[in-house]
Amino acid sequence: MDYNKEALRLHKEHMGKIEMRSLVPVKTRDDLSTAYTPGVAAPCLEIKEHPHTVYEYTRKGNMVAVVSDGTAVLGLGDIGAKAAIPVMEGKAVLFKEFGNVDAVPICLDTTDVDEIVKTVKYISPMFGGINLEDISAPRCFEVEDRLKAELDIPVFHDDQHGTAVVVLAALINACRLTGRKIEELNAVFSGAGAAGSAICRLLVKVGLKSAVLTDSKGIVYRGRAKMNANLEKMLEITNKENKQGSLTDALCGADLFIGVSKGGLVSADDIKLMNKNPIIFPMANPVPEIMPDEAKAAGAAVVGTGRSDFPNQINNVLAFPGIFRGALDARAKMITEEMKIAAAKAIAAKVSDSELCAEYIIPPATDKSVAEAVAKAVYTAAKNG
Amino acid sequence: MDYNKEALRLHKEHMGKIEMRSLVPVKTRDDLSTAYTPGVAAPCLEIKEHPHTVYEYTRKGNMVAVVSDGTAVLGLGDIGAKAAIPVMEGKAVLFKEFGNVDAVPICLDTTDVDEIVKTVKYISPMFGGINLEDISAPRCFEVEDRLKAELDIPVFHDDQHGTAVVVLAALINACRLTGRKIEELNAVFSGAGAAGSAICRLLVKVGLKSAVLTDSKGIVYRGRAKMNANLEKMLEITNKENKQGSLTDALCGADLFIGVSKGGLVSADDIKLMNKNPIIFPMANPVPEIMPDEAKAAGAAVVGTGRSDFPNQINNVLAFPGIFRGALDARAKMITEEMKIAAAKAIAAKVSDSELCAEYIIPPATDKSVAEAVAKAVYTAAKNG
Repeated sequence: MDYNKEALRLHKEHMGKIEMRSLVPVKTRDDLSTAYTPGVAAPCLEIKEHPHTVYEYTRKGNMVAVVSDGTAVLGLGDIGAKAAIPVMEGKAVLFKEFGNVDAVPICLDTTDVDEIVKTVKYISPMFGGINLEDISAPRCFEVEDRLKAELDIPVFHDDQHGTAVVVLAALINACRLTGRKIEELNAVFSGAGAAGSAICRLLVKVGLKSAVLTDSKGIVYRGRAKMNANLEKMLEITNKENKQGSLTDALCGADLFIGVSKGGLVSADDIKLMNKNPIIFPMANPVPEIMPDEAKAAGAAVVGTGRSDFPNQINNVLAFPGIFRGALDARAKMITEEMKIAAAKAIAAKVSDSELCAEYIIPPATDKSVAEAVAKAVYTAAKNG
Repeated sequence: MDYNKEALRLHKEHMGKIEMRSLVPVKTRDDLSTAYTPGVAAPCLEIKEHPHTVYEYTRKGNMVAVVSDGTAVLGLGDIGAKAAIPVMEGKAVLFKEFGNVDAVPICLDTTDVDEIVKTVKYISPMFGGINLEDISAPRCFEVEDRLKAELDIPVFHDDQHGTAVVVLAALINACRLTGRKIEELNAVFSGAGAAGSAICRLLVKVGLKSAVLTDSKGIVYRGRAKMNANLEKMLEITNKENKQGSLTDALCGADLFIGVSKGGLVSADDIKLMNKNPIIFPMANPVPEIMPDEAKAAGAAVVGTGRSDFPNQINNVLAFPGIFRGALDARAKMITEEMKIAAAKAIAAKVSDSELCAEYIIPPATDKSVAEAVAKAVYTAAKNG
């Protein structure tokens, strides 16, 4: 199938991919008087008197804003707010179809951090959660941190945390398959932006033995020139030995490779420098850091990519609909590390012992039962948190 | 029916009144690859290259933000953003059911004019139009004027212009019934806020002989103490003779009364001071300025109110869904006076000669065929504008 051609046709056929629907009938005068004036005054006054009832009488508790400024859209980069709409509508489609969450694309005509934070705060009364999307690093970190501090609803940057959750799920099952523990693994990351940093944080949180970040300038180490605030912060939990050198240097003696960078950066020889039976997640899109067959030929025990046409697709849709479903149902004020870890475990547990193999460490993106399992786990973690 | 009780039940049953739905299937890997990555990149790039195609590949062209700061909600006043949600969701229901417009409630946690204007500008890329709602005067005038100047999509404050359109429709038919022309009418307004000012402007635009505004301090005249900018501006088109005095004084010799103020302000004796067979639209809610039977007994030829339990309900739902439908279909950059007048004429024309009588000068709010007629008329006016 020619996805580009088919996508243009599909988007044009429906004039986008989402619509707002009414849940109530308005055929009679009584219908009008109940859904609208004068009856609607009753829930308004109830909410004014008892603010928490906004979750009972309105859609707030099921509605999520998908907020982007269009600066880091897919692999396309800074294409602007309008060109980002198809992606945000797509996200809204997935939110509804997988998690029964009502998502509204909010594409912002500003890239200023202060203005983004203020705008999201101002529009927040209608929403039960905020999903940040495709906002470029390092601005995305500040936007998320400030919104988390200022809002009492969950704020979740999916490019960071959704990706991290699904990678952790894949890693849990890769370890389960190869009889290893996360605590035994030395990891190397190619790409130290939003996704790379967030994956690294979550894996370190669950006990990764060591982590080394690399970017276009090689290994991230203390004392390197032109570091940004995020990289400095990441050094608090990575590269304890303060290694220097290239990605190839970093891979010597590593057990796990996580790629969120560019196609073709890793060679078969690089894989051979790693410890035996390494776990390889080259997730660059559309071209992975190394192609799965090449990685396997060089000794990889398990390979997972971002692509749907290879086995083990590491796809965020396995995480975000269920995470928000669970968080909304629990009326969680934030999405904690425990909730993310619970989500990853729930995804991993959807692969049974009999199914588990090198070609199947993670359920397919189309499996809608995953979101349900994730929602339950996240709900429980939120309630116990 | 106890509307309050029934409204609470209805709002709780569904947890609000609206939901976001997907227009495309996501069951197979191909579905995912078309609605989302990698296929979605094609419409994104198309929009980046050819910005106008955002109207072809996304929902923008059918999506309207219903924006309120919760400061003037129904007759309830400043109840805040969250308590305003049921009204804005109700509006979204009416937009969809009457005009097939996808409307998103945007309830703002700020009442500052600069911040409201900036926020609406920032979120505008996703929307084909902005419907302002329940923002208190005089701030609503500045918000609307500034957004109109800064955005290239229609901005419409329904409390002003929607009301004005429906009043004009009712007046056209009241004249048709009583054999008069708008150009022959001396009008008195009770209430000089957002609705009163907008109705007055539109009626003057179509040729009203004279207009006098009154508020809680009586007649609005040049030189009165404590005037605001809006009242000063209204004096450019009202009270040419600079009359002073009370509402009763103003009504002497008037042909038309428009009330958007408070219940019970007008007496039978006031009506008797007016010219013969006056047209009386006492639209205060829930209690009209004068009850219809009392007005009729005092000589009124036609009476219209805001209430659904009396004949001739002057209800905005007759206007806004069709106005936006027509404006969106025409991709109008603004809603002009000509478009509003076309809408009013279309509403009036929905009452046939054989139906027209003192109890039926305007179609019922539940008549969904009105929106279609309004949309056509507005579309044509936009294209000819």
